[in-house]
Amino acid sequence: MIKHALNVTREADFAAWYQAVISEADLAEESGVRGCMVIRPWGYGIWERIQRLLDDRIKATGHENCYFPVFIPLSYFEKEAEHVEGFAKEMAVVTHHRLISDGNGRLVPDPSAKLEEPLVVRPTSETVIGMAFARWVQSWRDLPVLINQWANVVRWEMRTRMFLRTSEFLWQEGHTAHASEAEAREETLKMLEVYRSFAEECVALPVVAGEKPENERFPGAVATYSIEAMMQDGKALQAGTSHFLGTNFAQAQNIRFQNAAGELELAQTTSWGMSTRMIGGLIMVHGDDDGLRVPPRVAPWQVVIVPMLRDQPEDAEIVAYCKTLQQELAVFSVFGEPVRALLDQRPAKAATKRWGWVKKGAPIVIEVGGRDVAGGNVSVIRRDRLYREDGKLDSSVVPRGQLVDEATQMLESIQQALYSQARERMDANIRRDVTDFAALEKAFEGSKPGWVEVNWSKPTGAELDKVVERLKALKLTVRNVPGDAAVAEGACIFTGAPAVERILVARAY
Amino acid sequence: MIKHALNVTREADFAAWYQAVISEADLAEESGVRGCMVIRPWGYGIWERIQRLLDDRIKATGHENCYFPVFIPLSYFEKEAEHVEGFAKEMAVVTHHRLISDGNGRLVPDPSAKLEEPLVVRPTSETVIGMAFARWVQSWRDLPVLINQWANVVRWEMRTRMFLRTSEFLWQEGHTAHASEAEAREETLKMLEVYRSFAEECVALPVVAGEKPENERFPGAVATYSIEAMMQDGKALQAGTSHFLGTNFAQAQNIRFQNAAGELELAQTTSWGMSTRMIGGLIMVHGDDDGLRVPPRVAPWQVVIVPMLRDQPEDAEIVAYCKTLQQELAVFSVFGEPVRALLDQRPAKAATKRWGWVKKGAPIVIEVGGRDVAGGNVSVIRRDRLYREDGKLDSSVVPRGQLVDEATQMLESIQQALYSQARERMDANIRRDVTDFAALEKAFEGSKPGWVEVNWSKPTGAELDKVVERLKALKLTVRNVPGDAAVAEGACIFTGAPAVERILVARAY
Repeated sequence: MIKHALNVTREADFAAWYQAVISEADLAEESGVRGCMVIRPWGYGIWERIQRLLDDRIKATGHENCYFPVFIPLSYFEKEAEHVEGFAKEMAVVTHHRLISDGNGRLVPDPSAKLEEPLVVRPTSETVIGMAFARWVQSWRDLPVLINQWANVVRWEMRTRMFLRTSEFLWQEGHTAHASEAEAREETLKMLEVYRSFAEECVALPVVAGEKPENERFPGAVATYSIEAMMQDGKALQAGTSHFLGTNFAQAQNIRFQNAAGELELAQTTSWGMSTRMIGGLIMVHGDDDGLRVPPRVAPWQVVIVPMLRDQPEDAEIVAYCKTLQQELAVFSVFGEPVRALLDQRPAKAATKRWGWVKKGAPIVIEVGGRDVAGGNVSVIRRDRLYREDGKLDSSVVPRGQLVDEATQMLESIQQALYSQARERMDANIRRDVTDFAALEKAFEGSKPGWVEVNWSKPTGAELDKVVERLKALKLTVRNVPGDAAVAEGACIFTGAPAVERILVARAY
Repeated sequence: MIKHALNVTREADFAAWYQAVISEADLAEESGVRGCMVIRPWGYGIWERIQRLLDDRIKATGHENCYFPVFIPLSYFEKEAEHVEGFAKEMAVVTHHRLISDGNGRLVPDPSAKLEEPLVVRPTSETVIGMAFARWVQSWRDLPVLINQWANVVRWEMRTRMFLRTSEFLWQEGHTAHASEAEAREETLKMLEVYRSFAEECVALPVVAGEKPENERFPGAVATYSIEAMMQDGKALQAGTSHFLGTNFAQAQNIRFQNAAGELELAQTTSWGMSTRMIGGLIMVHGDDDGLRVPPRVAPWQVVIVPMLRDQPEDAEIVAYCKTLQQELAVFSVFGEPVRALLDQRPAKAATKRWGWVKKGAPIVIEVGGRDVAGGNVSVIRRDRLYREDGKLDSSVVPRGQLVDEATQMLESIQQALYSQARERMDANIRRDVTDFAALEKAFEGSKPGWVEVNWSKPTGAELDKVVERLKALKLTVRNVPGDAAVAEGACIFTGAPAVERILVARAY
């Protein structure tokens, strides 16, 4: 039996395993500030890779980055009652702008520095960006406005879980304004597709892209779309959303333009976002009982070289050999960027370092000892194939030149393997044969139930509420209407009425 | 006489000119939120370039990026009285975590959601990062810890000026811990040098790097160093600082390690930062009466191609010609990166677009009309040489192939020209012949006095206070002790005692 690097397995306790990966892979830790985490270098390095690759795609589709204030005056939220009802309640409120000593060595908010109007730490920037759009947009010539912001946002959470639900998190939020509904709808779907292709191609996260049902819409949105990824415990994680807002926000914020005919019209707006939550998804899709496995495209270091030193004179030769290897690797490009190879010279035992990098999920770990140098070889571990069939660590000795020649291909192969494994798991765990509610209920018995795609009649209002309630009793939600689902034929499993479309039902984070 | 693009000149009103550049170049605008600005795409694009280039240098010197919470519990500030005295008073204080309706359609902080301990929106992250260091550092093997954070910070300001002094600003803050004082001092100077070379090579901003006098030290620091740039009105702008903190912060935050001999020691720490203030410096050093001039290395677009369209059938041919030109330029690299060329197809008049890009300070603007296409030419404007000697706009017609061949060289030449102009201006405006206080006073008469480098005896305590007071009466401050200043010979102009070093005295932002 394999002795794995973590002391808890996915099978035994998925939630504890998730925390163990975060801790053992040095991704993040509790900060001492309620609901806020410290994102450590390896975790932040993955976020930087996500940022860089997603930002490239956001810019390639014509968007420009801006920065808007972290504070939003309370009155801005009052303009849109619906918006406020939806989620704008649990927020951090700034009420004072000065601290003073209380005379006993303690600091307190200065009563004489109370703000006339409290400020809210942004939970999202729709309101303040909408105000800017109203200033910027006068004529059809000013449209479309296509902007994006990378920022921290705060939503006060009572029960937090690192990366998945924290009071402060990092994200990008895109906001656009258009002259026509058709163009705004096209934008909404374009960005949904950017998220889908980014998640699949870069994070190796297979997802289902589709429209959310009415009850899951962003407050104020006409239509909300999501990408949903399947975690290894069978639950769904919403990993990105794109909203068509119609003229609802333009109305509240007075975003009007003169059209070509000289008439005043409301702009059509959209918004879309992806956050550090994606890292939670990456962990729960690609992690295993030895820790994290990071897809090479988003790995801060793709190849880590560990010299096996023994405080002997030959150490210098080993380090020199490793440096040469690092330089040889750095000449190559993979996924359109130079290979990122690290030489780990920290003062620690080679085995400790090896297992540290395994737990962090570096795609390729290369160990170099005296014997390797003598033979012109290196010892290679591929993180996606850690053990041989006999349960031993699969570390293979290959000539250095061969490793250098094959490294980029190996990285591509690891990226592909992680995607394929996740894709197969997701495909194998979506049932499409459920045709009545009892069967649905039965499908979600057991510990790793997966998802179920069923017919429904797209109920609205009270009828929809009833469906939502029935699902809620089973801890289920409607994730979305997969864009690539088959045409619905037959009856709705909830209402019995003729089916209109097929929906994904799942437990979710 | 030249009719310039802005309606106010540097000569007539420098402060108004500064605001005009920010507005006309679409860099930033008032947000409606007190003290906070909206950074618009062109301004944010410059910040992104600064981030990318500085981040590369921060990483190349061995630092890793992390992310720490935006909120800091109030009690953290109480641990270091000195720290609190210095600057930690004007801060945004979060006291509630929920809004509720007051029943009259207004939102108010929910009295039942008052925080037990108020949270401060980070003004800097020394305390919260120090707490993490205390967790991370146990042994000498854990040192050095070399980390950096890109983040927004808030210092409540009563009188704000865009980019120079805003309540919220963006910056990077580096924080490191070392086993020895020598190593920490070396780190402090290394990062000062990173700032100097970055400012000069990337932002084309000549600076004077040196140590701050005792009274200008960061609270709690043993030594503070700065880079100082000279604005066109002769004032100094501190554009980056690097602090050696000794064991002061380690003591307050209990950052201890076991050394190789098994004894417990306090770590030696440093911190260093550069902010969006740099953009204010860029404007005041490189701007002219036609708007901003952006050094090519930090220009979001280095070459902007403006097709001159007339709603005629030949328009399509002009656009095709421009697209070819854009593709031809993108093949080339300059400063180690692909040339950034934009084709501006917005629906506006060519002349409006030309002057828009001149005001924004795009390094090269290329106009293409029907005649250019017919002759295989382009019309080129270099932003650093806008007018001919006769006062006419210097737009020269050159063969397209020649422009493509020469574009990278032209960008290098513009980068160099902006630096040289600023360097000459700074060098010409530092006086080194002042040997008594009366002469110093006289040197600062007039509207653009520049800087004065003088001898001083490095007074401390009450004697220093007296010097600071005398300077303050003239609105002057000691900027720093230039690292490359000559050896001081003679008497201190303040105390008459033998001079110890030479200091820079100036008015400052």
